[in-house]
Amino acid sequence: MIKIGIVGGTGYTGVELLRILATHPEAQLTAITSRKEDGVPVAQMYPSLRGRVDLAFSAPDKANLNECDVVFFATPHGVAMAQAPELLAHGVKVIDLAADFRLQDVSAFEKWYGMPHSCTELLAEAVYGLPELNRERIKTARLIGNPGCYPTTMQLGYAPLLKAGVIDAASLIADCKSGVSGAGRKAEIGILFSESSDSFKAYGIAGHRHTPETVEQLQRLTKDKIGLVFAPHLVPMIRGMHSTLYAQLNQEISNEALQALFENAYADERFIDVMPFGSHPDTRSTRASNMLRIALHRPENAKTVVILVVQDNLVKGASGQAVQCMNLMFGLAEDCGLHHVPVTP
Amino acid sequence: MIKIGIVGGTGYTGVELLRILATHPEAQLTAITSRKEDGVPVAQMYPSLRGRVDLAFSAPDKANLNECDVVFFATPHGVAMAQAPELLAHGVKVIDLAADFRLQDVSAFEKWYGMPHSCTELLAEAVYGLPELNRERIKTARLIGNPGCYPTTMQLGYAPLLKAGVIDAASLIADCKSGVSGAGRKAEIGILFSESSDSFKAYGIAGHRHTPETVEQLQRLTKDKIGLVFAPHLVPMIRGMHSTLYAQLNQEISNEALQALFENAYADERFIDVMPFGSHPDTRSTRASNMLRIALHRPENAKTVVILVVQDNLVKGASGQAVQCMNLMFGLAEDCGLHHVPVTP
Amino acid sequence: MIKIGIVGGTGYTGVELLRILATHPEAQLTAITSRKEDGVPVAQMYPSLRGRVDLAFSAPDKANLNECDVVFFATPHGVAMAQAPELLAHGVKVIDLAADFRLQDVSAFEKWYGMPHSCTELLAEAVYGLPELNRERIKTARLIGNPGCYPTTMQLGYAPLLKAGVIDAASLIADCKSGVSGAGRKAEIGILFSESSDSFKAYGIAGHRHTPETVEQLQRLTKDKIGLVFAPHLVPMIRGMHSTLYAQLNQEISNEALQALFENAYADERFIDVMPFGSHPDTRSTRASNMLRIALHRPENAKTVVILVVQDNLVKGASGQAVQCMNLMFGLAEDCGLHHVPVTP
Amino acid sequence: MIKIGIVGGTGYTGVELLRILATHPEAQLTAITSRKEDGVPVAQMYPSLRGRVDLAFSAPDKANLNECDVVFFATPHGVAMAQAPELLAHGVKVIDLAADFRLQDVSAFEKWYGMPHSCTELLAEAVYGLPELNRERIKTARLIGNPGCYPTTMQLGYAPLLKAGVIDAASLIADCKSGVSGAGRKAEIGILFSESSDSFKAYGIAGHRHTPETVEQLQRLTKDKIGLVFAPHLVPMIRGMHSTLYAQLNQEISNEALQALFENAYADERFIDVMPFGSHPDTRSTRASNMLRIALHRPENAKTVVILVVQDNLVKGASGQAVQCMNLMFGLAEDCGLHHVPVTP
Repeated sequence: MIKIGIVGGTGYTGVELLRILATHPEAQLTAITSRKEDGVPVAQMYPSLRGRVDLAFSAPDKANLNECDVVFFATPHGVAMAQAPELLAHGVKVIDLAADFRLQDVSAFEKWYGMPHSCTELLAEAVYGLPELNRERIKTARLIGNPGCYPTTMQLGYAPLLKAGVIDAASLIADCKSGVSGAGRKAEIGILFSESSDSFKAYGIAGHRHTPETVEQLQRLTKDKIGLVFAPHLVPMIRGMHSTLYAQLNQEISNEALQALFENAYADERFIDVMPFGSHPDTRSTRASNMLRIALHRPENAKTVVILVVQDNLVKGASGQAVQCMNLMFGLAEDCGLHHVPVTP
Repeated sequence: MIKIGIVGGTGYTGVELLRILATHPEAQLTAITSRKEDGVPVAQMYPSLRGRVDLAFSAPDKANLNECDVVFFATPHGVAMAQAPELLAHGVKVIDLAADFRLQDVSAFEKWYGMPHSCTELLAEAVYGLPELNRERIKTARLIGNPGCYPTTMQLGYAPLLKAGVIDAASLIADCKSGVSGAGRKAEIGILFSESSDSFKAYGIAGHRHTPETVEQLQRLTKDKIGLVFAPHLVPMIRGMHSTLYAQLNQEISNEALQALFENAYADERFIDVMPFGSHPDTRSTRASNMLRIALHRPENAKTVVILVVQDNLVKGASGQAVQCMNLMFGLAEDCGLHHVPVTP
Repeated sequence: MIKIGIVGGTGYTGVELLRILATHPEAQLTAITSRKEDGVPVAQMYPSLRGRVDLAFSAPDKANLNECDVVFFATPHGVAMAQAPELLAHGVKVIDLAADFRLQDVSAFEKWYGMPHSCTELLAEAVYGLPELNRERIKTARLIGNPGCYPTTMQLGYAPLLKAGVIDAASLIADCKSGVSGAGRKAEIGILFSESSDSFKAYGIAGHRHTPETVEQLQRLTKDKIGLVFAPHLVPMIRGMHSTLYAQLNQEISNEALQALFENAYADERFIDVMPFGSHPDTRSTRASNMLRIALHRPENAKTVVILVVQDNLVKGASGQAVQCMNLMFGLAEDCGLHHVPVTP
Repeated sequence: MIKIGIVGGTGYTGVELLRILATHPEAQLTAITSRKEDGVPVAQMYPSLRGRVDLAFSAPDKANLNECDVVFFATPHGVAMAQAPELLAHGVKVIDLAADFRLQDVSAFEKWYGMPHSCTELLAEAVYGLPELNRERIKTARLIGNPGCYPTTMQLGYAPLLKAGVIDAASLIADCKSGVSGAGRKAEIGILFSESSDSFKAYGIAGHRHTPETVEQLQRLTKDKIGLVFAPHLVPMIRGMHSTLYAQLNQEISNEALQALFENAYADERFIDVMPFGSHPDTRSTRASNMLRIALHRPENAKTVVILVVQDNLVKGASGQAVQCMNLMFGLAEDCGLHHVPVTP
């Protein structure tokens, strides 16, 4: 059994980690920290966990995280980089669900997250935790920067095309839509039910933190310079992410050949479903599961290819992906504890 | 492995059975019938099942249901009673998720369901499939009438009080609220998104099929004559059921004693969670799981007791309960394959 | 034109007042105060008002409220009672949408709202602003306590029966459901989209502020002692309120006679719609309008009568009712500026 | 008063026409037809109209539409072209909310709508009813093809840029999102609450009827060849449309100059709101009103301009626009009866 600690488990990625780990056959939940909720049983805050998670939150100093095998950070940005060095020094592996170890470019991190990076010496060994594109490095990693939700969809959607060199890397347009849980469990007016229900809007069009992360990763797949317009939107649903990705083909290529690029790229992937050409996946087809589905379109067979990517932002876009990384790091089957069938309807 | 057939698996209780059985360690899905969808892969209709359920729908006459160990009917009322005799004759157990075998009172069935009962000779051996109140009979049953969703909440909410004789059986008021999936997967105007979203209404106040079912079962718990006003309402949510049950106490009794009645009644129940007195459970705390939660209230300590009951109408209110029955009928652990942690948020 | 001031217009009842008054032919919006938003154009906070409301929020001390004809308080409880005396002294009429002037029973106010009442000398002249039950007094009032949303439905639903003396006043059960906007525009976790969407729950069953208000008013309609169990619930919709009211008939009475009680009581009421016996009104049939609809039921013709009442909690349940009172106070047609047709779908 | 007939008023554009016309000071509702609902009071089907619309549906042959001043067709495609010739011959003006008179290209109509066009002789005089781009022709029209909802947003969003010649007309990408009411009031599985709530998906990416309509109209604004990728999506909300439009600038131009293009183009438009550069309008800021809001963005000041356009698909996208056309055709103020303030929250 793997002894697991969670730092900051009161948010949505935290409770989703708990939901997944509660039935993971190799996971032994050892500690979960929250300074503010010290002593409060987890199941009191989340009645869905009554009878399934017996832990109480504990203050960080009481949690003996150094005795864990792995610690997940489901915290605001900046927390993991403060605590990771000590944990690593004690032989504890670290998976950060925030952004501290996602970006290799420190100046980009500091610009977009508005804080100095206190732990740059660890960046070199930090591994970007997207198994489908980075599996071998994850297996031997001590420190994982778990991908952002939007970047997961953009990378997995564009990767086969960029690797094959069939699209113009400089004119990518990603029109992405997320359920409200992606904004976290924060007491903010804008994500109140009465504000975000029965309405739809874009946000962050001028610039969003997930752009530099995505560009940095996509750039590793091609020598051409990546140019990306990323437009996120807020959908009145709890979970779910739908990315509509546009790319300009730079050569003649049949729809069949496009489809084959994706089917070959993901043939062995347990959590990537390449649907028939022309499908329209809905986000609910991934709800509460670690699946990500992809479908290709080519409007009027012209030079634009449209890639539709759906996932559950809290699972493949966050906590499920983190557990997938953990499985790889500990030599388990990659899908261990991740067999949830999507909940429909 | 138990060889399982499903008749009529295109509706919501059907797909929910498939979701549950796809990860049930003792279940071997053998056939699923739909005359209309003959030959269509199940995963084509429900992409959430892609890679998880490989069956295709088959016409009833091709399905070899007689070779199954158990057949679930997730069909409109009237189908199971037509097919059950032959299946039973071949040694196949039958679990009907519709109403054909719920009511012992044939005239009530015929009045409320508007059809003659074609199979009254089997009613005597049909067992009402509510494990918490009827476990021993279910274990040896060949034929199960799986309870309605509302009746499950009303029975489990009133049972401890009726058994203890502390309430007036004749003045029960059950104000119940269901998510829209309870209305099934039918092309009807009234349950369109644009009709039922962002709105709330009652329906069937003058009389509802679940009243006679509930009264028949509650009457088994007390010698006093049951009187029940049942008022169902439609909530703009997909899954979830919340019953607010009112009863008049007929004697002095402390809140602690009331609470103890419930805690004792359900102490050994895996799927019933008696919450602390005065709790307000939300339906999402049971979402996509087989849990049912109960909380007691006593406004201003007066003679009215209020019992709040929540469940997922498609799981404990339908398909999960049916699998729970199956587990009992085949000598498996009662919670085999039913370990889903509720999905929150 | 009536010069109108609004204190605290940043919440939902405030913006709804603005929506209504922006097209009210006799209203001249003069000032709207918010200490926090001093100088911010109203339409910047609420883009729905761009081009329709040109005012900016101003700090209370700059607002010259004393020069208004009427001031609405769309504030937290306790604000109106601090400012009403000075306004009244300057000849300004006051309509408080909070609770400061709803309860004549000061001790009940202080118990339920947790603050001393600083203005008890004005309570005697304060008029409860429910026009259908209190029209004549409103016409001559200087100071209005605008009813709570739930109490409006309970009073209008029970009044004809209590006045006629045909029900047992001591055993009223009101199972009420409100959209989330009823909780206000506050940054609180519990009313986030991801917390309250796709779920349903009760709250405040043990006791709620609207119980004493309702009981005080209902008691004026009958000599019998009122006993009320009030159970509020939160519905995943923005606007809308549905009250399911139960009462026990104390005599033989036909359904036709019951219906006639309501039709006669509300025959001349512009905003009360008594629907055909046995109807199931949905809340959306009142959305964004000042209408309140009522329908009667009698399950199996027994002694329980069920009264269904729907309204838009922000209009008839708050701001529309306040404007209705204003119209009466200033001798305008009662429905002046309140002709909105409900928005469906 | 203008005598008005409505053909096919049982759908959402029909009831929305009724909501608007019920308070329109110059409208006299004379007849509303529905073969299926002959004799049924409109307010019985739509209780929101109780007391506001006294008409009953009548069979087409009884409706005396020839005596109307104008007839609106809120019908499926193909109905208006069958009845328009006779109405026009009787001097009745016709506004078709379906597609019969939107496309001048008959072959495109026949391809996309799958039926022959039975009335091509009238196409030449049919006027495309988008007042902001076609006002003068509407004023004198006898026959209006009311624009599609998506095309309204795409045209008003791209027009100032195309007219100014600052973008590449051949590489337009329109990623559009609509509330579910846009799919109409049809008993179809895919738009059930339990299918489309809490989920998000694209549809019709390979080709959609609104593409040829939009291209035909956009082509009138520029000599360059229009190339448009149009990707519609379904949002779990009732009303509202959000179009995210991408265009490639073909020259150096400042953000201020871009903004000025729009502010100048729409300076006198009552129903177009050009918001400050960089705004993120939400659809609810137009709910139940005839407003359309536009905001410009330029991610990282590069060559892509992003235009956000929001409207209520049933008002400016359908019935409100039709009434706006009617006002122009009858010499009324263009905003007569269209003063609704958007409903927020």
